[in-house]
Amino acid sequence: MQKPDDRSDVVIIGGVAAGSKTAATLARRLPEATITLFHKEKHLSYASCGFPYFASGEVGSFDKLLQTPYGVTRDAEFFEQARGFTAITSTEVTGIDREARTVTVRNLDTGKTFTHGYGKLVIGTGATPAEPPMPVAKSDRIRPFTSPEDTIVFRQMAEKGEIGDAVIIGGGFIGIELCEAVKDMWGIDVTLYEVQPQLLPWMLDPEMAAMVQRSLESQDVDINTDTRVEKIELDEDGKPVVYLEGNVSKNTDFVFLCLGVSPQSALAVDCGLRTGDHGGIVVDATMRTSDENIYAGGDCVESIHRITRKPCYMPMGSLANRHGRVIAEILAGNAAEFPGVLGAFVLRAFETNIGGVGLSEQAARQNGFDIQTVWGSFPDKPDYNPEVKTLTLKMVFEANSGKLLGLQAVGKGDICRRIDVFSALLQNSGRLDDLLDFEHCYAPPFSEALDPLHHMAGIALATVRTTRFAGPGSGRIGDDTLVIDVREEEEAEKGPLTETTLLADTDPVVIPLTQLRRKLGDFTNLVETRKPKRILVVCARGPRSYQAALILSQAGFDGVEVLAAGLQAQ
Amino acid sequence: MQKPDDRSDVVIIGGVAAGSKTAATLARRLPEATITLFHKEKHLSYASCGFPYFASGEVGSFDKLLQTPYGVTRDAEFFEQARGFTAITSTEVTGIDREARTVTVRNLDTGKTFTHGYGKLVIGTGATPAEPPMPVAKSDRIRPFTSPEDTIVFRQMAEKGEIGDAVIIGGGFIGIELCEAVKDMWGIDVTLYEVQPQLLPWMLDPEMAAMVQRSLESQDVDINTDTRVEKIELDEDGKPVVYLEGNVSKNTDFVFLCLGVSPQSALAVDCGLRTGDHGGIVVDATMRTSDENIYAGGDCVESIHRITRKPCYMPMGSLANRHGRVIAEILAGNAAEFPGVLGAFVLRAFETNIGGVGLSEQAARQNGFDIQTVWGSFPDKPDYNPEVKTLTLKMVFEANSGKLLGLQAVGKGDICRRIDVFSALLQNSGRLDDLLDFEHCYAPPFSEALDPLHHMAGIALATVRTTRFAGPGSGRIGDDTLVIDVREEEEAEKGPLTETTLLADTDPVVIPLTQLRRKLGDFTNLVETRKPKRILVVCARGPRSYQAALILSQAGFDGVEVLAAGLQAQ
Repeated sequence: MQKPDDRSDVVIIGGVAAGSKTAATLARRLPEATITLFHKEKHLSYASCGFPYFASGEVGSFDKLLQTPYGVTRDAEFFEQARGFTAITSTEVTGIDREARTVTVRNLDTGKTFTHGYGKLVIGTGATPAEPPMPVAKSDRIRPFTSPEDTIVFRQMAEKGEIGDAVIIGGGFIGIELCEAVKDMWGIDVTLYEVQPQLLPWMLDPEMAAMVQRSLESQDVDINTDTRVEKIELDEDGKPVVYLEGNVSKNTDFVFLCLGVSPQSALAVDCGLRTGDHGGIVVDATMRTSDENIYAGGDCVESIHRITRKPCYMPMGSLANRHGRVIAEILAGNAAEFPGVLGAFVLRAFETNIGGVGLSEQAARQNGFDIQTVWGSFPDKPDYNPEVKTLTLKMVFEANSGKLLGLQAVGKGDICRRIDVFSALLQNSGRLDDLLDFEHCYAPPFSEALDPLHHMAGIALATVRTTRFAGPGSGRIGDDTLVIDVREEEEAEKGPLTETTLLADTDPVVIPLTQLRRKLGDFTNLVETRKPKRILVVCARGPRSYQAALILSQAGFDGVEVLAAGLQAQ
Repeated sequence: MQKPDDRSDVVIIGGVAAGSKTAATLARRLPEATITLFHKEKHLSYASCGFPYFASGEVGSFDKLLQTPYGVTRDAEFFEQARGFTAITSTEVTGIDREARTVTVRNLDTGKTFTHGYGKLVIGTGATPAEPPMPVAKSDRIRPFTSPEDTIVFRQMAEKGEIGDAVIIGGGFIGIELCEAVKDMWGIDVTLYEVQPQLLPWMLDPEMAAMVQRSLESQDVDINTDTRVEKIELDEDGKPVVYLEGNVSKNTDFVFLCLGVSPQSALAVDCGLRTGDHGGIVVDATMRTSDENIYAGGDCVESIHRITRKPCYMPMGSLANRHGRVIAEILAGNAAEFPGVLGAFVLRAFETNIGGVGLSEQAARQNGFDIQTVWGSFPDKPDYNPEVKTLTLKMVFEANSGKLLGLQAVGKGDICRRIDVFSALLQNSGRLDDLLDFEHCYAPPFSEALDPLHHMAGIALATVRTTRFAGPGSGRIGDDTLVIDVREEEEAEKGPLTETTLLADTDPVVIPLTQLRRKLGDFTNLVETRKPKRILVVCARGPRSYQAALILSQAGFDGVEVLAAGLQAQ
């Protein structure tokens, strides 16, 4: 049959991201190759990351997610003509014989089974929705959100007005994207249950996740963290009933099970390929599995984290495409390596952008790093630009070396630019000094004269030496703390601290930074009367508090702390 | 008088960007320092980069450019109270006595002169408009665009409807920003004259500048490159008349002289400090001049280019702020260095964003690099996202090493993100492989699964090996070329090639990529009939042409070329 190392007879299992990218690139690099791609579903190479935007109506027709930019559907005919490889849909690979180098394939239309030989095999089987940890009734109204069918069924029901209320179980990436998709366009009431104490667990630290939660709540999404769903049943009309702990139940019209995904690696396991602790196929830097004739990429593989050097599981369409390119280059005989992952991510929830790259504080501590963290809130353009928006950043770095470890970002402002730059610096094992040396492009329609990343480095390098910071969300403040609001009087009147969740049993005192030096006498009297254990200085974004804290410390006051990233981050 | 090395008695000349940044940072780092800042004008620390947006009306009131985000004017009182240093306005430093370590200061209100001692001196005198190389009449209606007065006078006249027609002389950064400011809001007819054969000379290569020119022309700005202004006089009503070569003249209501700026280094020259070929003060990496007690930063200094390692002049508010920080840290006794410049820039002209970083092709060749260039046009988000916009990139890299040298970007799409990432990679002497290894944050509201930078690396690494490219703007095409339009028939009908400037004496043939393989027979007949010297394949953005060129080359056709970056870049 095949020659032992025939790179030119390639079989690919799966035609969404990694599989079709491998096939298309390989067909260009090695035109003489015979490439056969088997795909279980009817639709090929669909943009699954776009599902929430089809569900919301933002993307008008599902066909858009199947089409090239010029409106041609990426079907088998297209791949044959424009890309030069053979894609066979509605065929499921049910087994791999590594010895014989054949795959067993079932035609899902006819039910017939056949075998097909390969020189090299590429597994791009993707991910599968995680198994719910609770009993779930079978219904069209209770579904994950991973297949074309899931999104089409929801959209049809929403368009017909059949859904007035929806429940999302799971506050991860997809769950949060769906809040917007479901609520914004269709006006459906949305309740979200998350078993962890915060949204986006593992991705954001708790105080950053709290900002996301507040932004969703401000859009009337009912968020319930720390809430376990016990079971989902159907009422007499066939509509879902979600049961929580303590005999609480909620009737709804539709349930999304956004419980995460697992690598679809059963085929690989069955034929004895090595898989890892996360259940994904283990591959080397060339994306080769434990069998030298089999490669794998996309959501079915585990990756090495570039900072921790440990295996991790990161199912992302962007990584799958990069995997596909590497596999194609390798099969074409070129040098290529996948360098591992940094975990860059971004998502949108209504008008709030959420993202990050590298390690969160939690992840860095778990991995044994000795770290420091800083926060900051910044305008993404000059404040005189009418289109200015704000973003809040949290940075994690190694305490002694200043080595950058991670960045988290939440806000309406342009966060992608900062995440991407931080990612490019992480890629080069950057330190705080590298952030200062970073040269951004500046003009008032796009940026401030100093980028938020410059300020973050400044805070990390200089400010933390002289000033104590209270992290955002460090909890309610008792009467042993004297809270000084150093915003201008007008600002303090418009958005008084007493209306925030910050304060408990203490009255804030407003002394604008611009008057603080000349009011130091009054301030001294105040401190002598109240005798606070600490003095917490607050402002809108942080810089004024920091300046005020310096003035107070220089004037001899002890126990001065700054509310990091200001009220913006509360 | 002073101790020989008294860092705690600091005098600063100039209070716009570098000067006030130095003062504010130093006051925080070294609270015991006595800091005196002398400033010639009435307004301190104004956002001069925002002038075009005040001129246009986008920024409502000039005060916004003088204020903190919280609405307090950055005047002497503010600096004293909130920043802890003394700023004295309307005072001009007229001389520096390096021996005595004193400056001579003239009070511009009283005319009186006094001397003031310093331990360390910081020069932040900024830039001054370049001297026009032609005779220019004196008039309020003929001005540069560098001072608060320039912008306020224009805005007042525009608001009163006194300007129906304006001439901009110089197609650099400010000249182009002003096209939008003048035209968009006030509906003033705008004519721009540039003596060089292209807009943005030195910043963009000609074919990228041509895209900028077309975008301005599409907004009815009358652009005249290669056009020398001989003199500017006034007519009997006191309105400007601009005289060009060949006795051509143009009457107008207002003339902006956007001829660039020069470092304002006269004070430094007078006291014998070293200046460079560009006329700027020479400083080392700590921003120290040739006198160990004098530092300088901002638009009055020269910088070292981080790629060429040669001195250059780059007057940018962002760099001035970074200079100020370095000077403050050094004066406070901390370690800090300014690493040189990469030349990152961005500007907006109506809806088109224009920017770059590193070396243009012209600059790289002048500096003796053996280079290659690639182009590409890309969506900035998935094409199914209704907010998708396009950007065209040109990348310059070293031919053998693949070392990145420069990126230029033009388009309505999000270019800042790509320029900043490229800048961060240049900062680490990145290569093409580093672009492939870059991990961007991806979600459909923000990005494509592969970033344009990944595609650019792919084109550079793989495509140029197998395919010949014709750069955008390589000129009109004669009848020895067979032009194949591989767009879908509908696209070709909507935007036929014959309506572009691309074609001269040749009829394009439409054969969509999706039909090319099965129409190879027809194509062979066509080639045998026409016997072209070359076959130029064109599409909207480039990828289809590349794929089609591979198919044609594999089918044995010679002389196949791809129109780089597609019609988007034409």
